[in-house]
Amino acid sequence: MKQYTHQLSIKTNGRRLYDITPQVIAWAKDSGLQTALLTLYIQHTSASLLINENYDSDVLVDMERFFARLVPDGDPLFIHTAEGPDDMPAHVRSALTQTSLSIPLVHGAIALGQWQGIFLYEHRLMSAQRRVILHLLGE
Amino acid sequence: MKQYTHQLSIKTNGRRLYDITPQVIAWAKDSGLQTALLTLYIQHTSASLLINENYDSDVLVDMERFFARLVPDGDPLFIHTAEGPDDMPAHVRSALTQTSLSIPLVHGAIALGQWQGIFLYEHRLMSAQRRVILHLLGE
Amino acid sequence: MKQYTHQLSIKTNGRRLYDITPQVIAWAKDSGLQTALLTLYIQHTSASLLINENYDSDVLVDMERFFARLVPDGDPLFIHTAEGPDDMPAHVRSALTQTSLSIPLVHGAIALGQWQGIFLYEHRLMSAQRRVILHLLGE
Repeated sequence: MKQYTHQLSIKTNGRRLYDITPQVIAWAKDSGLQTALLTLYIQHTSASLLINENYDSDVLVDMERFFARLVPDGDPLFIHTAEGPDDMPAHVRSALTQTSLSIPLVHGAIALGQWQGIFLYEHRLMSAQRRVILHLLGE
Repeated sequence: MKQYTHQLSIKTNGRRLYDITPQVIAWAKDSGLQTALLTLYIQHTSASLLINENYDSDVLVDMERFFARLVPDGDPLFIHTAEGPDDMPAHVRSALTQTSLSIPLVHGAIALGQWQGIFLYEHRLMSAQRRVILHLLGE
Repeated sequence: MKQYTHQLSIKTNGRRLYDITPQVIAWAKDSGLQTALLTLYIQHTSASLLINENYDSDVLVDMERFFARLVPDGDPLFIHTAEGPDDMPAHVRSALTQTSLSIPLVHGAIALGQWQGIFLYEHRLMSAQRRVILHLLGE
C-alpha cells in the first residue's frame, strides 16, 4: 500500500467555478496506482470544492446565479462585514458546498462519471491564491 | 491492508430518497474487514448521496418538500433548460447535498448511528439508472 | 500502514457551532502518523460537521443566523413535528452541511488551513450527547 500527497495552487480571479479536473487526473495517473482512494481537501473557508456537470457551461452560470440569490452579498442579516460584503456570504456558500471530496480510483482511473468535473468554487470577488491538498492511498 | 471495490446499480423511478443501507451493509460485511474506511461515490450530478433519519418516513417527505421549495422546478433564474425544467434544479440539489460519503468500519460494522440510513437522492422526475461506487480500505 | 479509531463524546447545550479542533489535533498527533487520511464521522442526523473560519466568532453567529432564516423552526411546510418544531429543521440543516469530513495528514499534522477550525454543529435547541467517530489510516 502506498501514499502520495500533492498541493495544487490555483490562482483565481473572481467569483466562479474553476475546472481543476485535468490537473487532478494527471496527478492521479502519474502515481501509477490502480486501486486507491483519492481525497481532495481545500484549505480555505471562502472557497470550496464541488463535483458538477462539465459539459454545458450554462450549468456553471446557473449554479452561480442560484447561490448569489440564496446568499446575497451585503445581506443586512450579517454582522461579520469587516472583510467586505462578499466575505460572510463566501463562508456560507462554502458551508453549503464541500471542503473535502473522496473519489475512488478503479482500474487506474478516477471513478468520475461521464458528465462529472471537479471544480474549485471561488466565492470571493477579488483575486486569490487557493490551495487544494491531494492525497492518494492504495496500490 | 486490503482493498475492495464494488458498483451498486440502482434503478430509480422518480424524485425521492431511496434507502440503499441494506446493500451497503451487506457488501461491507461480506468483505470480512474489521477496521476500515468505506467510501461511497455517486457518478452523477443530478442525483446525490445523503445520510438521513431512517425511522419516520415523514422525514423523507419533508426533506423533499424543503428542497422542492428551495430550488423550484422551472425557475426563470435558470438558462440551462434544454433537458427539462427539473434538470438544473437537480444539479443545484446535488451541489447542496453529497457526491461522496466516508464512513468508518469499526469492529466489523459500518459506524452508522442508531437512526441513520444511507440514501440515494434522485433529483430527476424521470426514471434513471444510477451508479454508486463503493470502496473499502482496511483489514 | 496503520489504523486507529477513536470516539469523541461531546455534550452540547443548545443550537450552535462547537469547536472540536483541539481534541481532533491532539488525537491525530498522539497517533504518531506522518502521512495519513483522517476521517470524521458524526453518528447523528440532527447535528453535523463543518469546517469553518475559527478566527472571528461573529462568523459563527452569522452562520447560525443564515441557517435559522433558511430553515425556520415550526415551518408549516413540515409534517414531521412529533419531536418538536426544531427537529425537522435540524435534519434539513444536517443535510445541507456534513456528516463526514476527510482531512489529509501531511508531515505529521492535519492539513488545516490557517483560518480553518473543525466544528460540530448542534441543530437541536435542547442539550444532547453527540458522538463523532475518528479514523486514521496511514504511516
